Amino acid sequence: MMNPTLTVFADSPDRGRGLARDLRVRWALEEVGQAYDVRLVSFSEMKEPAHLARHPFGQIPTYEEEGDLSLFESGAIVLHIAQHHAGLLPEDAKAKARAISWMFAALNTVEPPLVERGMAMLMERDKPWFAQRQPLLEAKARKTLGELSTRLGNADWLEGASFSAGDLLMIGVLFRSKASGILDEFPNLAAYLARGEARPAFQRAFAAQLAVFTASQAAQPR
Amino acid sequence: MMNPTLTVFADSPDRGRGLARDLRVRWALEEVGQAYDVRLVSFSEMKEPAHLARHPFGQIPTYEEEGDLSLFESGAIVLHIAQHHAGLLPEDAKAKARAISWMFAALNTVEPPLVERGMAMLMERDKPWFAQRQPLLEAKARKTLGELSTRLGNADWLEGASFSAGDLLMIGVLFRSKASGILDEFPNLAAYLARGEARPAFQRAFAAQLAVFTASQAAQPR
Repeated sequence: MMNPTLTVFADSPDRGRGLARDLRVRWALEEVGQAYDVRLVSFSEMKEPAHLARHPFGQIPTYEEEGDLSLFESGAIVLHIAQHHAGLLPEDAKAKARAISWMFAALNTVEPPLVERGMAMLMERDKPWFAQRQPLLEAKARKTLGELSTRLGNADWLEGASFSAGDLLMIGVLFRSKASGILDEFPNLAAYLARGEARPAFQRAFAAQLAVFTASQAAQPR
Repeated sequence: MMNPTLTVFADSPDRGRGLARDLRVRWALEEVGQAYDVRLVSFSEMKEPAHLARHPFGQIPTYEEEGDLSLFESGAIVLHIAQHHAGLLPEDAKAKARAISWMFAALNTVEPPLVERGMAMLMERDKPWFAQRQPLLEAKARKTLGELSTRLGNADWLEGASFSAGDLLMIGVLFRSKASGILDEFPNLAAYLARGEARPAFQRAFAAQLAVFTASQAAQPR
């Protein structure tokens, strides 16, 4: 059986620090013990037909498997991996459906206000409206994180005792806001994120992503 | 077998015109021929413990099934319905995984820029930055719709000949931007949306949602 292949940034804009969305897919593959290969794409290659055939929106990651299966969207890829290997979704049908609710919640309810806030900090900091508008985005992000924090309470994982693909995506989303400091206001979310980061599979995924960037820098002409 | 129960707005802010996200779930249930009941919630009830137990983020829709299964997130609910009834996902495992990629793409890649644009039109029109900022949001939304339009081409549905849950969510997302006129710039997307709206199951779902609003208005004291 051949390894699946992920398409990832040749030169990640975050310098390999875990913000690119292939981290979630690498993490899922590490959790289930599935080796994988990577195909590096530059920003210009991402706009070319070969890549657009794999990803209609010209983004990363993509996932290809033996036998002509090609997927895009990190959530769909993680779900596919979780459905075809043991360890990321409960066996029980009801518990599985709940875990999938959390997968969608991570990407559709929690990630959008965090990305909106983060993108404004990155792209609109020099705009005349930034100082007045940013508090609105902070409030939206805090409201969502507050609701998540209330639901999580003192539990280790979203559905209690067992880590699932829902936690993997939620922690993947929270990780991208860690550097901004907003999670410090929600100690149980910060601890939840730390539990995720402490998993050996997360650490292997993070190291592998960073290694791509480090190698790309070393290979560049000086 | 008891019908599943959806939680929906008692008084939808859109006056029952299809913008509330229970439309997608009603549509999926209509496509597979599954009858359902609804529980109406007011905005104040949505913030109370009984509803927050069903939906951690205090939103609609939720979905409950006999035997103690309670789900939230419209994407997760549509996927659950599609996995337990014939008609919304291909039988072939690879084709099914592709359809699920489109479900995530609808909610994670296409919906966020459309919602960001739409919310700014609704909430920030009187702000001093609106005129200068809105073109940036328009450009983001157009870029994503342009990529979707290119991929769809002349096909009837996203993966060609067969309607799937991926189309259902994508059309559900496009429908919410229809009134703003932005789809007029992409004739194949407008035609794709029209094909979705023409489905009898869509029409039944739309009518049922509107009927809740109409009844709530009729019941109010004058």
